[in-house]
Amino acid sequence: MREEITSLQNSKVKYAVKLQDRSERNASGLFLIEGYRELKRAADAGVVFKTLFVCPKLFLGTNEQALIDQIRDGGAEVLLCQERVFEKLSYRDRPDGLIAIAVQMQKSLRDLVARIATKKNPFLVIAEAIEKPGNLGTILRSADASGVDGVIVCDRCTDIYNPNVVRASVGTLFTIPVVEATSAETLMWLKERGIKVVATTPSAKEEFTQADLTGAVAVAVGTEQIGLSEAWMRVADIQVKIPMYGVADSLNVATATTLVLYEVVRQRHCGKDLFLWK
Amino acid sequence: MREEITSLQNSKVKYAVKLQDRSERNASGLFLIEGYRELKRAADAGVVFKTLFVCPKLFLGTNEQALIDQIRDGGAEVLLCQERVFEKLSYRDRPDGLIAIAVQMQKSLRDLVARIATKKNPFLVIAEAIEKPGNLGTILRSADASGVDGVIVCDRCTDIYNPNVVRASVGTLFTIPVVEATSAETLMWLKERGIKVVATTPSAKEEFTQADLTGAVAVAVGTEQIGLSEAWMRVADIQVKIPMYGVADSLNVATATTLVLYEVVRQRHCGKDLFLWK
Repeated sequence: MREEITSLQNSKVKYAVKLQDRSERNASGLFLIEGYRELKRAADAGVVFKTLFVCPKLFLGTNEQALIDQIRDGGAEVLLCQERVFEKLSYRDRPDGLIAIAVQMQKSLRDLVARIATKKNPFLVIAEAIEKPGNLGTILRSADASGVDGVIVCDRCTDIYNPNVVRASVGTLFTIPVVEATSAETLMWLKERGIKVVATTPSAKEEFTQADLTGAVAVAVGTEQIGLSEAWMRVADIQVKIPMYGVADSLNVATATTLVLYEVVRQRHCGKDLFLWK
Repeated sequence: MREEITSLQNSKVKYAVKLQDRSERNASGLFLIEGYRELKRAADAGVVFKTLFVCPKLFLGTNEQALIDQIRDGGAEVLLCQERVFEKLSYRDRPDGLIAIAVQMQKSLRDLVARIATKKNPFLVIAEAIEKPGNLGTILRSADASGVDGVIVCDRCTDIYNPNVVRASVGTLFTIPVVEATSAETLMWLKERGIKVVATTPSAKEEFTQADLTGAVAVAVGTEQIGLSEAWMRVADIQVKIPMYGVADSLNVATATTLVLYEVVRQRHCGKDLFLWK
């Protein structure tokens, strides 16, 4: 490893901080990945790294060196940082001494085709115009957990390379195919493949445990404020609601998504028994 | 309404900003509530207000005046603010012109007794040492939606009066009984009442759809990092896991909680059929 960066004015450090801004991410096609778990998942998934900043004093585990070697072997420059320099780079409460500049994956719908080609009943998530990075990241984490074949982020509000998406996804952004596309092209793509759109909306007549979700489905969710757009509601093949027993009329978008995703999995794994909620 | 506050140096404005800090909230027993929906739910629930700051230019709806009257009639001082003053007070992306200083409710386990006295099978949530305000608020929102009888926040890390708890809860903090207590007293309280503790943990043998959750239950969840403490795991009557089909080994704590809460509701509303996941 080369000598330690001790100056907050170091140009590489300053550049990495800039990547916390969306405009710089868009312009450069680069983004930040922080944390052992996230970096390990990214490295294993073949993400390309430019620069890895390390601060051994902050390491929490014992496997850091192997990961550093893996990322260096992939062609990245590895830079040692003083603790106060690393803290300037970090956007976490508890930095663990690893943060990297990586190349955006930029997958398109075409990349999903091969993935679902072998699936009898593809299982997808559509996240339309989600605003909060934490919600988008949590949706990705739940999508990974429920074994979806891919997530299509439509008409993005927050970009999937936002540091808080990476963090809330705990690196599942790298382990599931995540594609960005417009709603228009996605709608056409789904129709061509006979994948049913399942919209979650309080105005639905059926409850989420009542609709047959065992076929090829794309579970679609919309913005925190107003839900799915008209375009998606119009084409939805299935509309489901989540029963609400309190004063509020909706759930957090990531928790609502997770309930529907796990209902799809339950029907696929436990049989098709459907439920009416009394 | 009195004349408009135009100075950022106004002492009441400066004091309200201070309440974004936990130390000031703890010292004063006061906290902030922002937003029409949150304030309406708080006012309807009988929360006591000290001061209401209003900025009519930012109003999004048409019912603000009725709410202002309701809060003033409850004894609060109402202060008109210039837009730039209000923006200093606000902690939201989209301020809607209403923010108030209110008195903390400070409910204890004793306040829950009356609430569950009439319930054959009380349904509670235990949130132990949750760190992120957004997660705690989202748990409250889901608790409201699933119709729980109360939430017990044990050994708090984030306090329930954190502005981001209020926001993420969309005001359900005021509509469900939320109690703060130590784990030790809560454990004893539950045992005395024969309420079973349901712990969600990846090491459980049973899946969450497989355990009978129709009796008196308290669904317990722990910190984002390490889950429930030993004390809770030891006394748990039921341990359940959520099946995971991806690379990550856990879900976001609020989404995991929501899945288990809705499984309790499903079993109560749809009958006791239990499921094995293949």
